[in-house]
Amino acid sequence: MRMSALSRTTGVPVATVKYYLREGLLAPGERTGVNQAEYGDGHVRRLRLIRALVEIGNVRLQDVGAILTAVDDDTLAVHDLLGKVQYALAGAPERDVPAWQEVRSEVDDYLDRLGWRIRPDAPTRNRLADAILALRSVVGQVPIDTLLAGHAEHARALARDEIAWLPTEDAPRAELAQAVVVGVSLYGEASAALRLLAQEDASSDRYLVSG
Amino acid sequence: MRMSALSRTTGVPVATVKYYLREGLLAPGERTGVNQAEYGDGHVRRLRLIRALVEIGNVRLQDVGAILTAVDDDTLAVHDLLGKVQYALAGAPERDVPAWQEVRSEVDDYLDRLGWRIRPDAPTRNRLADAILALRSVVGQVPIDTLLAGHAEHARALARDEIAWLPTEDAPRAELAQAVVVGVSLYGEASAALRLLAQEDASSDRYLVSG
Repeated sequence: MRMSALSRTTGVPVATVKYYLREGLLAPGERTGVNQAEYGDGHVRRLRLIRALVEIGNVRLQDVGAILTAVDDDTLAVHDLLGKVQYALAGAPERDVPAWQEVRSEVDDYLDRLGWRIRPDAPTRNRLADAILALRSVVGQVPIDTLLAGHAEHARALARDEIAWLPTEDAPRAELAQAVVVGVSLYGEASAALRLLAQEDASSDRYLVSG
Repeated sequence: MRMSALSRTTGVPVATVKYYLREGLLAPGERTGVNQAEYGDGHVRRLRLIRALVEIGNVRLQDVGAILTAVDDDTLAVHDLLGKVQYALAGAPERDVPAWQEVRSEVDDYLDRLGWRIRPDAPTRNRLADAILALRSVVGQVPIDTLLAGHAEHARALARDEIAWLPTEDAPRAELAQAVVVGVSLYGEASAALRLLAQEDASSDRYLVSG
């Protein structure tokens, strides 16, 4: 199909498609003339993935690049692909202050106690430290174990389900890559929405007189 | 304390404090001279809450205003306060396209089947519809029940814990308000980080040869 049809099919404006082409997020179409190229189903799929990541996953465009690079790297094992996608999403800045470093050590100890196998350089450790620091700035010096009691257990059960849902390592590469991106990024948004909805239901039960 | 001390204590630059004052996010200090005012612990707490919401909760500044207005409204019952905070965070744009409207109906039916008590006008319904639409743009027309199998149950268990942790309705207003904001916004970030960490652990178990 022409670029105009690609734009219509995906709902992505032609100018945006051109921008993605320039940025290398989308592979060039097959040249059919001086100023013409043909695009196929692969382009449609890729465009949909980019739009979903940007619009729903709230992934910044520079991070989309890193995710797609990982998706396109056929030599990455599933576990490493999942790591790359996660780490592209966990773009919290390093914190050089001692208070943050202390919380970061506590996070490391906490994860050790849980027995979770997390890479030492995982930026998700930093992200949890950021969150703990923010929580404590409001609730005071509550131990991590108390702050996160219950949460870790539920997160673990949910993650087991999410990972179990992924194809086995010998599945076709494209299927595998798509499943990892969906599982890490897009399910995050669904998960967050469900958490808020479930909170409202639980709040109804606790605070409203049942009618 | 003077504004300079308030800035030092909270790590918020003086220019930012002045901006919050102008925007009405922070109450004025007590006037002690033509160009001087005294700030107290309430200002420190309020500043920390704003910074935590903005930096960690990734709440936009205009939404912080709505959250603080709800926090300061002593006439709001807990359940309504929780709703206001949630809805300030769920700022997804309305979608006028039929495809989205259809998914939105499916979401309503799904929540009915779950038996969750959710306000008909809850914007969190829209947010879940956004997420489902994005998931389907990648995985195809999978039924909601299949897409979210397991997720809803875990979200529910987690939310019950989170809501149970809140004070009873007769607790002091300030304590109640703070707990709701923390529970809805800041725990969301901790929850997201834990989910990613748990995914890495589950991925280690599934895809790595244990050593």
